[in-house]
Amino acid sequence: MAQTAVHIDFQPIGRRIQIRSGATLLEAAQQAGVGLVAVCGGSGVCGTCRVRVLAGQVNPPTPTEEDELPAEDLAAGLRLACQVQVQSDARVDVPRESLSAPQRTQVEGESLAVPLAPAVIACDVALEPATQTDLRSDWTRLLDGLAAAEVEAEVPQDRFVLAALPPVLREHGWRVRAAVRGREVIAVGPVERAPLGFAVDVGTTKLAGYLVDLTTGRTLAMDGRMNPQIAYGEDVMARISYAIQGPEHAATLQRAIAEALNALLIDLCRRAGARLPQVVDAVMVGNTAMHHLLAGLPVMQLGTAPYVAAVSDALDLKARDLGLEMAPGAYVHLLPNIAGFVGADHVAMLLATDTPGKPGVTISLDIGTNTEISLNAHGRLLACSTASGPAFEGAHIRDGMRAAVGAIERVRIADGRLNYQTVGGARPVGICGSGILDAIAQLRLVGALTEQGALLPFARVRAADHGPEFLLATAQESGHGRDVTLSRSDVGEIQLAKAAIRAGMRILLEEAGLTEADLDRVIVAGAFGTYIDVDSAITVGMFPPLPRERYFQVGNAAGMGACQCVLSVQQRRLAQQIARRVDYLELTNDRRFTDRFTQALALRPDCWDEG
Amino acid sequence: MAQTAVHIDFQPIGRRIQIRSGATLLEAAQQAGVGLVAVCGGSGVCGTCRVRVLAGQVNPPTPTEEDELPAEDLAAGLRLACQVQVQSDARVDVPRESLSAPQRTQVEGESLAVPLAPAVIACDVALEPATQTDLRSDWTRLLDGLAAAEVEAEVPQDRFVLAALPPVLREHGWRVRAAVRGREVIAVGPVERAPLGFAVDVGTTKLAGYLVDLTTGRTLAMDGRMNPQIAYGEDVMARISYAIQGPEHAATLQRAIAEALNALLIDLCRRAGARLPQVVDAVMVGNTAMHHLLAGLPVMQLGTAPYVAAVSDALDLKARDLGLEMAPGAYVHLLPNIAGFVGADHVAMLLATDTPGKPGVTISLDIGTNTEISLNAHGRLLACSTASGPAFEGAHIRDGMRAAVGAIERVRIADGRLNYQTVGGARPVGICGSGILDAIAQLRLVGALTEQGALLPFARVRAADHGPEFLLATAQESGHGRDVTLSRSDVGEIQLAKAAIRAGMRILLEEAGLTEADLDRVIVAGAFGTYIDVDSAITVGMFPPLPRERYFQVGNAAGMGACQCVLSVQQRRLAQQIARRVDYLELTNDRRFTDRFTQALALRPDCWDEG
Repeated sequence: MAQTAVHIDFQPIGRRIQIRSGATLLEAAQQAGVGLVAVCGGSGVCGTCRVRVLAGQVNPPTPTEEDELPAEDLAAGLRLACQVQVQSDARVDVPRESLSAPQRTQVEGESLAVPLAPAVIACDVALEPATQTDLRSDWTRLLDGLAAAEVEAEVPQDRFVLAALPPVLREHGWRVRAAVRGREVIAVGPVERAPLGFAVDVGTTKLAGYLVDLTTGRTLAMDGRMNPQIAYGEDVMARISYAIQGPEHAATLQRAIAEALNALLIDLCRRAGARLPQVVDAVMVGNTAMHHLLAGLPVMQLGTAPYVAAVSDALDLKARDLGLEMAPGAYVHLLPNIAGFVGADHVAMLLATDTPGKPGVTISLDIGTNTEISLNAHGRLLACSTASGPAFEGAHIRDGMRAAVGAIERVRIADGRLNYQTVGGARPVGICGSGILDAIAQLRLVGALTEQGALLPFARVRAADHGPEFLLATAQESGHGRDVTLSRSDVGEIQLAKAAIRAGMRILLEEAGLTEADLDRVIVAGAFGTYIDVDSAITVGMFPPLPRERYFQVGNAAGMGACQCVLSVQQRRLAQQIARRVDYLELTNDRRFTDRFTQALALRPDCWDEG
Repeated sequence: MAQTAVHIDFQPIGRRIQIRSGATLLEAAQQAGVGLVAVCGGSGVCGTCRVRVLAGQVNPPTPTEEDELPAEDLAAGLRLACQVQVQSDARVDVPRESLSAPQRTQVEGESLAVPLAPAVIACDVALEPATQTDLRSDWTRLLDGLAAAEVEAEVPQDRFVLAALPPVLREHGWRVRAAVRGREVIAVGPVERAPLGFAVDVGTTKLAGYLVDLTTGRTLAMDGRMNPQIAYGEDVMARISYAIQGPEHAATLQRAIAEALNALLIDLCRRAGARLPQVVDAVMVGNTAMHHLLAGLPVMQLGTAPYVAAVSDALDLKARDLGLEMAPGAYVHLLPNIAGFVGADHVAMLLATDTPGKPGVTISLDIGTNTEISLNAHGRLLACSTASGPAFEGAHIRDGMRAAVGAIERVRIADGRLNYQTVGGARPVGICGSGILDAIAQLRLVGALTEQGALLPFARVRAADHGPEFLLATAQESGHGRDVTLSRSDVGEIQLAKAAIRAGMRILLEEAGLTEADLDRVIVAGAFGTYIDVDSAITVGMFPPLPRERYFQVGNAAGMGACQCVLSVQQRRLAQQIARRVDYLELTNDRRFTDRFTQALALRPDCWDEG
């Protein structure tokens, strides 16, 4: 076969590469800088580099693929990139779970198709100019014009919107586009501009923003960036501690997040070729503390028992009152909170995953420093929050780090050999949450770790000052002069974290008179949850040992929920109904919790004493 | 009679003085610093120092009083202060028209009793503290408490109000006062504070502010101050010219007025022993340009034909959006405008004077650089604005000045002798509007001035470079080295001003098929209108020659209208109904205007050619 050049188009990241015909998709991905997970380095043993060929000629599945991929995945067209040789131009879908961190923008998620019902609609009107015999005020004239177009609106009670009309009318020949929200005109401008919406998942660590066209529902641009409040405290409690030191501190946090959101929106607009005044609506979700800090609400009462929110209902606040730069009269819709530690982001996740609408028994959870868990038990909704701590984000772990470049994110011990993959394929700087979970699971599987978390004598297990440790990468490999290791105390941190999650799930089920076996599905959302290996999570006892197909890793469902709500007021109503339907269970009050937590510390799939 | 000391209490200014028994009230007033008008200096010939003795022993009316005062005034208890000798402690009412300028705060006016129906009510609630078993959010808790007190409210969509609750609850034992506007909580605070309202007449030249208790309707404090925008243009047109030079200019004007209003409110609060956060509501009125500049609206279209307002409806804007410091969520209600040159202040005046409710035929007018005139012709409301120019404010007059200390404000020529009175009794610096009007009327009455405005040979009429002039005060009297005079061209300015007013009144009447003789009453409002001598105004032909009792000088009716509206939402509705009922007549379009204006230039009571 003559070696010709072919073009490969990697979706949805949108990266294109030209490569010789006959190359593997893994080679193409590496050359294109697509961070495809490939723990085994392309030997076909790890099964992580899954892709889907959408168009183009490739070889049929190899025996390796038939071994590594479940029949259902093969049937669904999944392939291992290392096994696929391209013979023509091709288009390839890289599933989120096959991407390593640099592409982990966590702005994508499984979106439900939402019928468009935006809060803000655009209405174009052409008006008669004012004359000596028609002295109606500009606003009376506009409202008359809107009424003629069957859009009933009132004079806006907003000086910034009011002020915009006279110049627009006179500079654009008395033709104007009005953005109307209910009966309130929230912006006026030239007719050519489409109204846009801004949806944001305001995470403690990261912001994920989406710019959508409110007339088509299309996402025009999406991007993620760090939450700059991190400089004032890594987790929620640290940030609350900072905020309550004085009004200036709280204001600093509010300004920081507002500035970051403005920068994010400017960037999205630039990429979409749009202008800020086109952005006429926004929906933001976050945990209760992020919600309060964004809205400039006191968090003092979130930091001490009984941990109550200042406000739990959905809010519609003027964007400018939050320091956000959008259309002059635009609002930011903040979804309702459920409790002090179950926030609007969880509501958005429940909405996007349609957890409340699922038949049977479903658990949905978003893993973080606090893990919010909801159970839908045949229509009854229960939620709790459990303090899983920052170990999964690499904190309190000796060589722990966030899922940044150089973090060991996947670990496999196959045929007695350690394989790992780092974010960005860089030299191993440390280890992030998904890597730690993998490492512990693999150590358990090979018998190097007890159920209690003690390291046993094994290859790469060695003695250190603080006890035995597992060598992940040598100083030579890491290049920063230190070995990357996993210690007994690191394992202990993960035990605490996963026990909190497992116990929380269990108590919700108990409250509903159910057991883990009754679970029809477990929906795992969020950055960490999306990239973990569910098998590892089951092996270490974080998740119950259910058939693999009952687990759904759904990406940034909170962000998707925000997007759905920016496209539809029905979705906002649904979110409010969900928030009202959920019964919150305070685990710190629950007498069962300590016992379940203690049992759940064991590193085994079924960690319950009673079987 | 033994000379004993008696106490005199001058009302409503509230000044008290101790004086020897037997002294005249004029002496007492002078000693007390009460600026009682006394043009003749106490000789009993000018009839200007009218007062009413409310309590105490005084001599019966003297023959002088019986000569000078009309029988009806005598019957009503009016006296001349220069003729009244006090024999005991006494309480004396000094009518507004008897006061000279230093007391001309123009914050007082004829107020109608208004049944209290404030937009904002206060509701006190005592709540159960949050506990582990009652985790309602603070706002849910408050709204539940309000509902129990039968006050239905919603979660406020205002971050500043939302933020106030958590600390208030915890610092004041979960007892809180909520200020509720409709269903919106606009402030929360400790229970002890009464809710207050702020009413302001935003004049082009002066601001008049009132602080009222919304639970009693009492006015706690009132004060006036200059509109600082004067530095950027003396009249409306100059200010518009300044504003349209750029957004920064407009913003400067907005900030200037906001800062002055803040300073005024702080001062009123200090005097009433109140605090800013108690101020939960405000009503402001002004002409259309002042309204727009306060609300930060463009004025460009007010400065060029066809002179349309940006908005004519009533507005409820967040006070903080205007830069005003009140309770966190307080609104400012701006009354509706009628047209580009008939503003909310005129609506407030019509409301306060109940012009629309009067039987028969009524004209109400507010004289200024622009004079707004409304006609109620048997229930039909017509309004116009006429460019009367700044002559009455002393501009374009050689020795003209505002009614400040040293301005000649009253002039009488009796028995061939010139008498005048200055504001504050100071040396004559110049002459203000009411003085010019008096001077011209007096010159007409003694035959020193023709109907056309030409000065004839007469005592104190002398030749000057620019033609003949009338000597009001010598350089020696004035003390500033210049004579104070009135020239032909000064008279001409007044002719233009008064002709505009008279023609406007006439055209409104014509439009309704009526004549001046049909007028049952003429209501004259505002600073200038209140201090002019109506007889002088009739003599020069500014006002039609109707019986004196058909004229009513009502003080700052616009300010009173604002007060009524801050006390009652019914009054706001009434104001809107009035604004809608008024048919605006654009005089610049009116073919009759030039003819009527030309005729009205004549300096005689009945200036119409056809009689």
